[in-house]
Amino acid sequence: MNRKQLINQIFTKKSFLCVGLDPDIKKIPEHIRKSERPIFEFNKAIIDATAEYCVAYKPNLAFYECLGVKGISEFEDTVNYIKKFYPEHFIIADAKRGDIGNTSSMYARTFFEEYDIDALTVAPYMGEDSVKPFLEYKDKWVILLALTSNMGSHDFQLTEDASGERLFEKVLKKSQEWGDDENMMYVVGATQGTMFKAIRKYAPNHFLLVPGVGAQGGNLQEVCKYGIIDDCGLLVNSSRGIIYASSNEDFADIAAKKAKEIQMQMEVELSRI
Amino acid sequence: MNRKQLINQIFTKKSFLCVGLDPDIKKIPEHIRKSERPIFEFNKAIIDATAEYCVAYKPNLAFYECLGVKGISEFEDTVNYIKKFYPEHFIIADAKRGDIGNTSSMYARTFFEEYDIDALTVAPYMGEDSVKPFLEYKDKWVILLALTSNMGSHDFQLTEDASGERLFEKVLKKSQEWGDDENMMYVVGATQGTMFKAIRKYAPNHFLLVPGVGAQGGNLQEVCKYGIIDDCGLLVNSSRGIIYASSNEDFADIAAKKAKEIQMQMEVELSRI
Repeated sequence: MNRKQLINQIFTKKSFLCVGLDPDIKKIPEHIRKSERPIFEFNKAIIDATAEYCVAYKPNLAFYECLGVKGISEFEDTVNYIKKFYPEHFIIADAKRGDIGNTSSMYARTFFEEYDIDALTVAPYMGEDSVKPFLEYKDKWVILLALTSNMGSHDFQLTEDASGERLFEKVLKKSQEWGDDENMMYVVGATQGTMFKAIRKYAPNHFLLVPGVGAQGGNLQEVCKYGIIDDCGLLVNSSRGIIYASSNEDFADIAAKKAKEIQMQMEVELSRI
Repeated sequence: MNRKQLINQIFTKKSFLCVGLDPDIKKIPEHIRKSERPIFEFNKAIIDATAEYCVAYKPNLAFYECLGVKGISEFEDTVNYIKKFYPEHFIIADAKRGDIGNTSSMYARTFFEEYDIDALTVAPYMGEDSVKPFLEYKDKWVILLALTSNMGSHDFQLTEDASGERLFEKVLKKSQEWGDDENMMYVVGATQGTMFKAIRKYAPNHFLLVPGVGAQGGNLQEVCKYGIIDDCGLLVNSSRGIIYASSNEDFADIAAKKAKEIQMQMEVELSRI
């Protein structure tokens, strides 16, 4: 999916919500846990319930890999299900990959050819040749970690160099030599609040993938205040706050309700642009 | 495997060689490519041929994931084969994972419980809570990226802060608040030459996983000159230089020959300690 199509979806659906598909087998409702393909069944119900309120899905690979071959197979089923029944949804594989060039090429082949997913999260530590192989695909996206939502983001990402430039700013600047706002986005945690100002200074036009609203404590209004742009430029993710809002048989209905609540707030924010 | 057992293996076998299992389906010999489980068959032949010359194997997940469920299944077979027939070998999953705490916990569960592998490579960009979940397992190891072997290592890893401390040095120092030389190693590229001096200043006693000898141009003697310690403290990896030394039917014999050549150089280096 290209930038124009994504923006189109956002303004048509009045939503820039991304639903995180992190199906922890220990947390999904008991009646589903017993089924043959519990992860896929859970995802399917969540997807059917939330599709009208969101524009993107973000399966987090860790939650599939931990089940070995079976987990990967249910990941594939999930991706295929979205592609078949909700082809207008943007799919992000949250995998935080990044390795030397020939290895990154293999990962790119996996996610962009084998699974034909729209975007992949990538870690920047290894620099240019670890990121570039992902940028060689038309209408596919690298979503590079810039300023993450967790406590550990303070350990290295905020380190200032001699000129006062912080590491995440360096990542924003340097990476724009490799790609542009048509094939690169950045991860910026919703918990980072006013830091969105600094982000927009270096990436005024890029889409930002924003995790951390909900369970992690980030605030949608604050994110929008500093982060939203004319093209919206935001994909705000919620995982646990939606998919585990209820652990009973009504989990999908409650997930829909939670997704709708967020979508309505987003509609207000979009109307202010 | 704990540190003492690893050191014991190294001095018994007079080798600190790690063989990288990066089986690219496009590069493995044609007669194997046609088999039912080509990746596993290739690995099996390489393992049987090289086991006596090395102390560790390092499958790189990218080369398995790119084949989807089938690839993961052959990865599992490979790990199980090593564990069954060569239980004294140290197994490293080269996956460069790292995510927010609850996600890193899932990855830890995958690699340390599901696959029961000895060590996992981890990217440091997301800081403390992205690394710590991996350190909660007895006799398991985090191998943290410090100074990698690729060109892109110059983009961020060498950035100096106001006090002149470089990012990789900050990673070495900070991470020692989370783990120690009994559960943490560092990735330092063989291509980094004299930088091993700086590494040893901050991590005098840690094991270093050193990729980049062979295909990437690193030099074993130079690595040892600056990096070897009384406990050896090095695992030097070669992937392409061994496993693709021949693409004919004799590939396993040639791989054994290449591994033996490196082992003999290592024996000389160990005798100098």
